[in-house]
This record gives sequence, C-alpha cells and structure tokens, in this order.
Amino acid sequence: MPTVYITRKSHFNAAHRLHNPDKSDDWNKATFGSCNNANWHGHNYVLEVTVAGEPDPTTGYVLDLSILSRILNERVIEHLDHKNLNLDVPFLKGILPSTENVVVAIWNRLVDALPAGRLHCVRLSETERNAAEYFGPDA
Amino acid sequence: MPTVYITRKSHFNAAHRLHNPDKSDDWNKATFGSCNNANWHGHNYVLEVTVAGEPDPTTGYVLDLSILSRILNERVIEHLDHKNLNLDVPFLKGILPSTENVVVAIWNRLVDALPAGRLHCVRLSETERNAAEYFGPDA
Amino acid sequence: MPTVYITRKSHFNAAHRLHNPDKSDDWNKATFGSCNNANWHGHNYVLEVTVAGEPDPTTGYVLDLSILSRILNERVIEHLDHKNLNLDVPFLKGILPSTENVVVAIWNRLVDALPAGRLHCVRLSETERNAAEYFGPDA
Amino acid sequence: MPTVYITRKSHFNAAHRLHNPDKSDDWNKATFGSCNNANWHGHNYVLEVTVAGEPDPTTGYVLDLSILSRILNERVIEHLDHKNLNLDVPFLKGILPSTENVVVAIWNRLVDALPAGRLHCVRLSETERNAAEYFGPDA
Amino acid sequence: MPTVYITRKSHFNAAHRLHNPDKSDDWNKATFGSCNNANWHGHNYVLEVTVAGEPDPTTGYVLDLSILSRILNERVIEHLDHKNLNLDVPFLKGILPSTENVVVAIWNRLVDALPAGRLHCVRLSETERNAAEYFGPDA
Amino acid sequence: MPTVYITRKSHFNAAHRLHNPDKSDDWNKATFGSCNNANWHGHNYVLEVTVAGEPDPTTGYVLDLSILSRILNERVIEHLDHKNLNLDVPFLKGILPSTENVVVAIWNRLVDALPAGRLHCVRLSETERNAAEYFGPDA
Repeated sequence: MPTVYITRKSHFNAAHRLHNPDKSDDWNKATFGSCNNANWHGHNYVLEVTVAGEPDPTTGYVLDLSILSRILNERVIEHLDHKNLNLDVPFLKGILPSTENVVVAIWNRLVDALPAGRLHCVRLSETERNAAEYFGPDA
Repeated sequence: MPTVYITRKSHFNAAHRLHNPDKSDDWNKATFGSCNNANWHGHNYVLEVTVAGEPDPTTGYVLDLSILSRILNERVIEHLDHKNLNLDVPFLKGILPSTENVVVAIWNRLVDALPAGRLHCVRLSETERNAAEYFGPDA
Repeated sequence: MPTVYITRKSHFNAAHRLHNPDKSDDWNKATFGSCNNANWHGHNYVLEVTVAGEPDPTTGYVLDLSILSRILNERVIEHLDHKNLNLDVPFLKGILPSTENVVVAIWNRLVDALPAGRLHCVRLSETERNAAEYFGPDA
Repeated sequence: MPTVYITRKSHFNAAHRLHNPDKSDDWNKATFGSCNNANWHGHNYVLEVTVAGEPDPTTGYVLDLSILSRILNERVIEHLDHKNLNLDVPFLKGILPSTENVVVAIWNRLVDALPAGRLHCVRLSETERNAAEYFGPDA
Repeated sequence: MPTVYITRKSHFNAAHRLHNPDKSDDWNKATFGSCNNANWHGHNYVLEVTVAGEPDPTTGYVLDLSILSRILNERVIEHLDHKNLNLDVPFLKGILPSTENVVVAIWNRLVDALPAGRLHCVRLSETERNAAEYFGPDA
Repeated sequence: MPTVYITRKSHFNAAHRLHNPDKSDDWNKATFGSCNNANWHGHNYVLEVTVAGEPDPTTGYVLDLSILSRILNERVIEHLDHKNLNLDVPFLKGILPSTENVVVAIWNRLVDALPAGRLHCVRLSETERNAAEYFGPDA
C-alpha cells in the first residue's frame, strides 16, 4: 500500500525575544542584535505539519484533516497564538525561543497525539525568508 | 554526475465531492461533513511534479520543461481541468477523490510517460492549507 | 477626522458552471467553453471586503474585525462554502454565476448589514489570474 | 504628462497589544480579546507606500526607488522593526496601535519627507487577512 | 446598471537596462547604479490589466476573459516575453524602460484594442517589492 | 541531539540566455526556443539555501542567519544580482546557465564556506512555475 504525506498549514501571531538569561546583557545584545530588543518583537508564524500514512480505503484519508486541525489547535495553536513565547507558554518554559528550538518543541507536543511513527515533519516559518524544519530525533 | 531535481507547477480547476457509494448517506455526511455536499464543491488545485536526473551536458536540462509540460497536459491537466473528478475522469473511475487518492492516481498516470526511475514526487494542493505528496510505491 | 479603509480577506470553495438556461446548449458551449462543463467545475474563491470609516478614538477600530468576520460568515461564507453556486444558494437564484455577477450579489448581501455608506469595495478572485471588483451602484 | 503611481513594499516585525489605558482591564479584555494579551503578541507587518507623479523624462522615474527606500527606512522601518509599538516608538506615543491608527501615523511620518502632494496611499497589512489603507486627510 | 472592474494577471520574462543614451556613462552609472549594468539584467514581470464595464445580461461578462487574454497576448505579451526591452520591442523604441515608462507604453498598446473608455488600469510589477500603475492620460 | 534544517530565502534579478556555443544557431533555436533569444531575457530568481545541524544550546541557532546571509551575499548574490549569467559571472564561466547548472554551481560556491557536511540543499526558482534543487554530489 502506498505511503502518502499530507500537510496542514496553520498560523499563529506571537511576541518573542532572543535572550539567554544565563549570559550578560552585553553578550545577548552582541549575539542576537535587534532580536534581543528588551520590549519584544513579534511574527506571523506559519506552521506546516506533515503526517505520513496509507490512505484508508474507506475514506481516502491518511488522517481526517479536521482531526489533525483539532490536534494542532488543542496542542499547539491555542497555546501560542497571541502569546509571548518567552513568558506565556508552559511547554516552552526554559527554552530560548529561536525558530529551531520552537520547531523541536512543537514536534514534541504533537508526536504523542498522533499514532506512532506517523508524524513526519514540522516546519515553522518565522518570516517569508526564514524557516526551520524538524523530522524527529531519529531522522 | 550530480542528480538534480526539477519541479514544474501546474493548475487545474475542478469540482468534486467526498462520497463513498458503498456507505449510507448518513455515514458519508458524518464522515465527510460539508465535503460531502450533494451538489459538489470545487477547488483551484495546484500540481507540482518533480523529476530527478543528471543535467544533460549539451542542454543543461534534466528534462526539457516544454516536454514535461506537454506530458503533464496530455496525461493529466486536460483530463482534470474544468471537470468533475467523480464523474468526468476515466482514470479516476471508482476512486474516492480525496487529495491523497488523486495524487496517487496522478503519479500512476505519469510514471510510464517518463524514463524509468525519473519521476520523484507528485504534490497536489487542494487549498492553500491542505496538500498531499506521493513519492511512489517504493518510497 | 481621517477616513481609513480596512480590508478583510476570506475564502470559500465552491462548484459552479457558466450556463444561460435561456440559450441553447450549442450557444452555451460556444460562449463559455470548458466553463460550461455539464458536471460543473470549481474554485477556491478569495473574497476581500473593504469598509471605510473613521477610526473610533476609544478602540482605534474603523470596525471591529471580529464583527466584520461574523457578518461575512453569516451573510456570505456559510452560504457559499462547499456549495454549488448554481443550485445551492438562495441569494444567487436566477443569477448566472460569473465572477462579475457573484461579486455584485455579495455586495447586495453585505450592504444592509453594515452602517450606511460604509461598504466600499467587494473583490472576488476566482483564480490567481482572474478577479472582479465592485464599488456599489453609485460608484 | 501622465500621472503614474509607484508602490514600494517593505516589511517590519514588531510586538504590540491593543489596550486603552483610560479603560478598565475588563473593558479592554472584552473589547480586544486575545489582542489585549498582557505580555504582547506580534506580527510581520507589510507596508506598501504609493507615490504619484509624472515620470522624469531624463530618468523614467516618478521617484528614484532607492531614495524612497531610504526615506522609508529612516522615517519608518528603523523605528518600528524589532520594536514594541506600544513602548518603543516615539512617534506612536499615546496612540493605541491598531492597524488603522498606525497607518495614519506612518502617513504623517512620510508626508513631509516627500514633495507636496506626491504621497498617495499607505497600506499596512497586519496579517495575510487584515489590512488598512489611508489616502491622507483630504481624501 | 452596475459598473464592475475585472482584472487579468499575466506574466513575461524580459531583460532590460536603465540607460539614457543622451547622457554620459558616468551619469548613467551614478543615476541607475546596478540597474545600468552594461550586459543587462532581467525580471519576471507581472502585468495586471483592469477593464471596467457593465456585466452583459446574457453572459454575465464585463468582457470575455478569453478575448482579453488574446488581446493581451497579441498586443503585449508576445512582444515582451523572452525579449530585451531596450533592443527587441518596436513599441518601446526610444523609451527608457523604467517600470513607469513601460506601464504607460503598455496602456497605449491596449487602449485602442478595447472599446472606448473601458481600459481602467494597467499595473506592472518588476519585482515583489516594486510596481507601477497607470490609469490613463485623463486620470 | 536533534538535527534541524534551517532555510534562508534570497533573491537576485539577472539576465541570461540558453545557448550552447558548440552547436549551430539552428540547433540552439530548435532546442531552446524563446529561451535562446539573442538579446537575452531575464528573471527574478529565488534562492533557498538549507543548512542542517544541531541547535547550539547557548544561542538556539543551527547557524546564525546573519552569518548565513553574509555568506550568501558575499559568495553568491553580489555576483549574480543585476548581472548577465552568461557574461558577467566568473564562477559560471563556460557553464550553460540552465536552472539545473546554476543550482549546482551555487552549491559549489557555498559548500566550502560552511562547516563540512552542513549544506543540505540549494533550491533555485527561475519562475513561479519552474525550480531546480540540488542536494550535493553524494545525495
């Protein structure tokens, strides 16, 4: 049976700041530049989640996208949309919210909510020009 | 010699309906919701076809895109554009036209029209937010 | 006080067919070509609605976009999304569903749901390449 | 001589919060919902500035876009990019940073930096779906 | 009867160079910078043409888009696509090919091919960030 | 530690021509059609470069994007933007500038400027519809 990959695109708008609290303000400013702005800045993040599987012969679905949407909303979007990634999100606590670190955290939020081995890729775009992708710890 | 992947994007506008004729109307309505609408709905589908190969030293081409375009038009686009995917398309006969099933059917339409092993990926977007990809039965 | 124009973009996916029932099948085929396909085709329509007004000094809003979204959903989107524009939509009854005619019909659905003189423009894109705009009967 | 309109698109990423400090927290929460989040949220703003004029016969330019870019950067982008619109921007001090109010403020920043009567429109998109346009106090 | 505006988007890929042959090389270099590159550069131009009119009661069309497409191809696209705007295009002879000048020249190519008073706007984008619009000599 | 893939998108505007100087003009015209136009044509190229790695625990970065941007500008963009790919670019000398050949050449320009094994993919889009990807000689 064929493996097909389906992708669902979602959005959230959040504030953040790149800042390592274990380092000095000077180090943070030198390392992160304007991304370290003390009063935050923000983005329209674009989240693309890819799930692999064989289409069900009865429905034609790898996974009902309304189920995937519900999982994405309940596990990720509701916790990040119109929030501050440094302050407001329990599952990002202690994580420096670079796109790289956030995409791994989103994978970890989703992997257990889906059947084993089905989550294939999480892609997070911070801007039109910058994105990070994660294929899990075994990829 | 290097392997390069070229991708050609095409479009078609079609009507469809998610409906399994072996199941009751109630099951179909419960399973597919508004996608089961009796009088159809439709989409601007976006089709991306990726072909792998070594660039020809004389032309610089993996495959002349005017040839690839002709194959896509003759084998796929002319059969799907401004059509009803449930009723009008011989190569989709008996196939529930979910994005997943259609992308596999398009692969099967294309694979024999290209040199063996060269078709790499078919990606079909139903909307800006939903897409399916297929890399063939051996991937 | 300044006049500012706010625009809200929405989407709906619908089937339709260009067909004038007062004319012969031959005339329809000659006039509308593949858009006349008997079994319908469809589009991901993009709807942009622009409202004019002075920002409220207390809220900064010309119009609360959550109110505008609700109006758009209740008056337009719920009636068109995952529907057949020729068969399923009472407010399009008897209207040949060209983009031009549909955009005028959407204006007429919205104009009374907004304060007098505030609806400025309705824009409807049928594809990436084709769109129609309407500024009301007095423009 | 013909009047031509040229448009330059720019971007900035900023944090903000919709909050009227003259009102109670309850009123703000009820009025602005998640946009009132105490710890801010943010956007990738898209700014489009349109300037009108006759093309110069010697250069073909209505206005050299490198000059327009410099004006946009010096007057607007450098003050808003990677900033907090409520806290960090002198020219937004005391202004509730709705898209409507910010677009008027950007017009006011630009109008004196351009020859009289040449600034035609400022358009600011907060997200893919929401935008505000301003054509000046006399439009 | 209502006036509706329809817009058709087309594309052409062309080389050009900003260079005024009546001026010195130094003046050209100082004025146009990298756009003056002696061996040309190029763009994927996007052309949007807007036509105004009342929808025909029999067809629902302001203007049959297949007719508009044919006019655009015959009068504009075939003459500009895969061409050099400075060297290959009779209707641009002697015109410095800034976006502003080209958009006026395209208007002049189209206005007589359409019914009087129906051409409303020509918009030409040189890049994602730069565009010029022209509404005719009387606007 | 997880491997994350970051992608940076850049742009350059260039002229080119598909022409094999070892072949006759007739062969070139028959093979490349309008892409062989003697006076060149051009494109807004979009370049996407993907780098793999483990996020640094101190910065959260796979690679500081300001460093990646500098490398892209110094090694690639400054040499291609507003240039003629056939005439102006030393690292393309003797290379027929098809998208396939240019994407391999860009990989070769970048691979030594990045830590060993970190460059994952170079993607070059010539138009909205045509793109080439390269994953290196060992992929």
